[in-house]
Amino acid sequence: MTFRHVVMWRVEADDVEGRRRLSEEIAAALAPLLAQVPTLRRMQIGINEIRPEENADIVVTMDFDDRAGFEVYRDHPDHLAAGAVIRPRYRSRLAVDFAFDD
Amino acid sequence: MTFRHVVMWRVEADDVEGRRRLSEEIAAALAPLLAQVPTLRRMQIGINEIRPEENADIVVTMDFDDRAGFEVYRDHPDHLAAGAVIRPRYRSRLAVDFAFDD
Repeated sequence: MTFRHVVMWRVEADDVEGRRRLSEEIAAALAPLLAQVPTLRRMQIGINEIRPEENADIVVTMDFDDRAGFEVYRDHPDHLAAGAVIRPRYRSRLAVDFAFDD
Repeated sequence: MTFRHVVMWRVEADDVEGRRRLSEEIAAALAPLLAQVPTLRRMQIGINEIRPEENADIVVTMDFDDRAGFEVYRDHPDHLAAGAVIRPRYRSRLAVDFAFDD
């Protein structure tokens, strides 16, 4: 079983360069979490490449062994610190959390 | 290389049962595409399980060999038919498209 946490953000900028820069700053805040949070098994970060007029800017997929593993991440101080970096950089955020059999 | 298309929807309902039903109808419209669209290599559909007050309802991840494979999907008649089923069932939609090295 895997518990997957998927989050998308639209960043707080309108121009191509600003959106790219803020997306890269969010990606840089997320990247260390894989080493910092022991229950985070896999992570993939993607910065949007097409249709910027309708698409969001960045997505992350995080996999845990179970919901308890996700909750360890949710409450982990390094996640909270990353959240403080990410929060002022986005305009909207949407997440889906679900379990599936591998 | 993989070209990944990730889409999240918030469905057109407010109550738990309505959201679940519409999410399952969207999932059922998406599921056959894996067999119908030859360039669609992998697909994973997830229906949200926690924090419905802030989360979206459903997410799909679709993998193609490259952007051209995604464009075959985008224009495929079975995708367009699925879109016609999905469109009246959601309130908002957000996507991110990106390439990564496997």
